[in-house]
Amino acid sequence: MKLDKSRPDDDDDDTCLSAGPPPPPFAGGAVVNGGDCDEVYYVPPFNFAMVDNGIFRSGFPDTSNLPFLQTLGLRSVIYLCPEPYPESISEFLEANGIHLFQFGIEMCKEPFVNIPADLIREALKVTLGICYSKILHLCSLICPTDTRNHPVLIHCKRGKHRTGCLVGCLRKLQKWCLSSIFDEYQRFAGVKARISDQRFVELFDVSSLKNTPMQFSCSKKR
Amino acid sequence: MKLDKSRPDDDDDDTCLSAGPPPPPFAGGAVVNGGDCDEVYYVPPFNFAMVDNGIFRSGFPDTSNLPFLQTLGLRSVIYLCPEPYPESISEFLEANGIHLFQFGIEMCKEPFVNIPADLIREALKVTLGICYSKILHLCSLICPTDTRNHPVLIHCKRGKHRTGCLVGCLRKLQKWCLSSIFDEYQRFAGVKARISDQRFVELFDVSSLKNTPMQFSCSKKR
Repeated sequence: MKLDKSRPDDDDDDTCLSAGPPPPPFAGGAVVNGGDCDEVYYVPPFNFAMVDNGIFRSGFPDTSNLPFLQTLGLRSVIYLCPEPYPESISEFLEANGIHLFQFGIEMCKEPFVNIPADLIREALKVTLGICYSKILHLCSLICPTDTRNHPVLIHCKRGKHRTGCLVGCLRKLQKWCLSSIFDEYQRFAGVKARISDQRFVELFDVSSLKNTPMQFSCSKKR
Repeated sequence: MKLDKSRPDDDDDDTCLSAGPPPPPFAGGAVVNGGDCDEVYYVPPFNFAMVDNGIFRSGFPDTSNLPFLQTLGLRSVIYLCPEPYPESISEFLEANGIHLFQFGIEMCKEPFVNIPADLIREALKVTLGICYSKILHLCSLICPTDTRNHPVLIHCKRGKHRTGCLVGCLRKLQKWCLSSIFDEYQRFAGVKARISDQRFVELFDVSSLKNTPMQFSCSKKR
């Protein structure tokens, strides 16, 4: 099987991926053909994974990922970069009625990393469903924690640092021990794992969100 | 925070972890205390992750992981090693009414790796809910695909090779392209990733299971 993934090998969050070619028709199908002519395959975004029920994480999606993303039935996307979306992604969101929550966290490189805690906190509120409108300050803490933003995809450029910090803070709220949080963070960041990111998660204050019931996994229980 | 994780650093699937000390009281609580005396934290097993709704993966759990596993409300465990469980884990399963499906796949090291496709296929059927009894040959293909085995935890020793192969085959059934399957496999296997495992997944024949509706994620759709 030969795939054109269009994924750069560099791991740095320098810029967002370019728009690339116009999106293929994605409704109801997949775009990548394998060796068998009658087979189609889905292409999840780079570093894609399920964080919890209705919460996904990934790197920056390109047009080859759109058929897969469509199968998720997303209600919202939490986008952690300041750059505007390429037109193809914006059109996809609009066509599928997916609400965009953008938090423009600048890319930084060590030793000048400065993840803004306030933006991570706001993104966390959206993830938890405390905020479910673009006008964050109007609805913050008004609504009960729920899943009305779910299914939600959290992503930055490579799904490593900014996304890793947000998911790490979510795990902290879910009362995972730090070593397990860092184990997960490092799985996605790989050789690009940053002590500064892990320190950010360690210091992140979840006390204002502690009344939020957010145990890991609301799987169908017996 | 100081944690005694009792996790060996070696990545080889040589033996299963020893039973260790007797299990702590885990009903309704967590075992690891952080710096704050009034805080408790959960300790997911090494390499723990959510594969799909109601499907989890991990390395071999130890007693420190039991409070976390209890929050998952597991119905079943798919255990991919031939060694018997330590008593602490067996007692946990029994006390929580968790059904054990054990598939004794021997640990192999390259270049002598020989993952048995028949066992992986049977384990895949349990994952999919096609089989939901210990007497696999009696119920195979009789029952419709469902989630009566879910929530289910798939694990081997390190959650890398045997678990990685099973999850890879599941992704193949979910029509993920091979490069995305390998991306996920490598995330968990890390530097221990094996070409032979990935080749196994590539060659694994899912045609007999193709009538099984198994699209990724049955998240709550709009």
